[in-house]
Amino acid sequence: MMETPKELVTAAMLVIGDEILSGRTKDKNIGFVADHLTAIGIQLKEVRIVPDEEDKIVAGLNALRASYNYVFTSGGIGPTHDDITADAVAKAFGVGIDIDPLAVAVMRPHYESRGVEFTPGRMRMARIPSGAALVENSVSKAPGFMLENVIVMAGVPNIMQAMVLAVTPVLRTGAKMVSRTVTVRRPESEIAELFAGVQKEFPDVPMGSYPFSDEGGFGANLVLRGVDAGRVEAAEGMLLRRLKEQGMV
Amino acid sequence: MMETPKELVTAAMLVIGDEILSGRTKDKNIGFVADHLTAIGIQLKEVRIVPDEEDKIVAGLNALRASYNYVFTSGGIGPTHDDITADAVAKAFGVGIDIDPLAVAVMRPHYESRGVEFTPGRMRMARIPSGAALVENSVSKAPGFMLENVIVMAGVPNIMQAMVLAVTPVLRTGAKMVSRTVTVRRPESEIAELFAGVQKEFPDVPMGSYPFSDEGGFGANLVLRGVDAGRVEAAEGMLLRRLKEQGMV
Repeated sequence: MMETPKELVTAAMLVIGDEILSGRTKDKNIGFVADHLTAIGIQLKEVRIVPDEEDKIVAGLNALRASYNYVFTSGGIGPTHDDITADAVAKAFGVGIDIDPLAVAVMRPHYESRGVEFTPGRMRMARIPSGAALVENSVSKAPGFMLENVIVMAGVPNIMQAMVLAVTPVLRTGAKMVSRTVTVRRPESEIAELFAGVQKEFPDVPMGSYPFSDEGGFGANLVLRGVDAGRVEAAEGMLLRRLKEQGMV
Repeated sequence: MMETPKELVTAAMLVIGDEILSGRTKDKNIGFVADHLTAIGIQLKEVRIVPDEEDKIVAGLNALRASYNYVFTSGGIGPTHDDITADAVAKAFGVGIDIDPLAVAVMRPHYESRGVEFTPGRMRMARIPSGAALVENSVSKAPGFMLENVIVMAGVPNIMQAMVLAVTPVLRTGAKMVSRTVTVRRPESEIAELFAGVQKEFPDVPMGSYPFSDEGGFGANLVLRGVDAGRVEAAEGMLLRRLKEQGMV
């Protein structure tokens, strides 16, 4: 009996921060989110990086949340005046934003235990749009949040990673992409025709060629991906047979 | 006499490739482009990462080329069937695409000297949209191209870098962002109010706070940016005075 194929669940990521666009900070969050979503069965389909400007954040968020099942944002929820993401999210959804008593309750003991003051900057991090659920920050307590299909996370990599893991149990996941890689030690231009021929026979198995060069010369990793493991394996089998016929593997 | 202030020149980047979105490949091109454009006086204002799907590439490209002075694309101009960027660019501009004799002339001697065949895959890399100018590839010869304000580059990092440098002399550049960084060894939440006060006095000097933690505890890099060096320095002076008054530096 055939299993009912699981549907695809898609996501986009919105990275918020002038420092990424100026080159001052090199993003480490996109790769983590890409790996994690792939592993749990959510397809990351688009990423946008925008500056700390309200209109850019609102426009990016509204475009992405209408097009994908989930949107993950990183950056701009800290204590300083340039942290405008929470306000921009509230504006994008047309909802209010205010100090959230639950956020305060989570943060206060953390500061008290360390003998530090609940400054206005820290209080700013407890401002949460109406209707959002908090996302736990196991590192430094000031929470992220989830509003409808939008998950708002910090930009500091270890905090963002903790938030991704914290929100994972409530995410709907779908079919997982299976991938197989065939490594050929030829320049990719010499296997291009053969590879295109296999792609034509398996239009439902997207195939990509990723060239590399090392001490051994040129090569290409031929990657076959799909949600149906049987089809991916069949495509891999045909690719390997044809490469062998040409003496290429 | 006042110098005429140089205008701002803006850019966006469109990264094309399933492998970035699946996490298989970690992007190294965004950071390079961000650093380089900042250094030459072009403001990178937005980045999008899209899959190897024609409609996504066309939509992203048309949105970005209408909004910024330049758009830099990376990825999807290799020899295999999944390399569809050149066709997507032609479609976005509504122009034809065909084998370009100049591209062939650049590529042929490279292959001949190495005794390799000009395969159909390699010929595919000579397909250039009508009206585009070639961008030199000093690494492996198959060129990028520039069509109006769009610069189309390879995804392999060392080739992309060579293409960015090759196209730089023909780019119009504008005012350069000057930046000053003040490092404070306090949690950013404790300097947030003071910092916001300085921002209010210098609304033309965007200021950002970037927290860090190391063996010495918590800290924040306070970054002041602007195209007017005098204003950035004046803002830095006020910030330093106020931090000193509070015994924070």
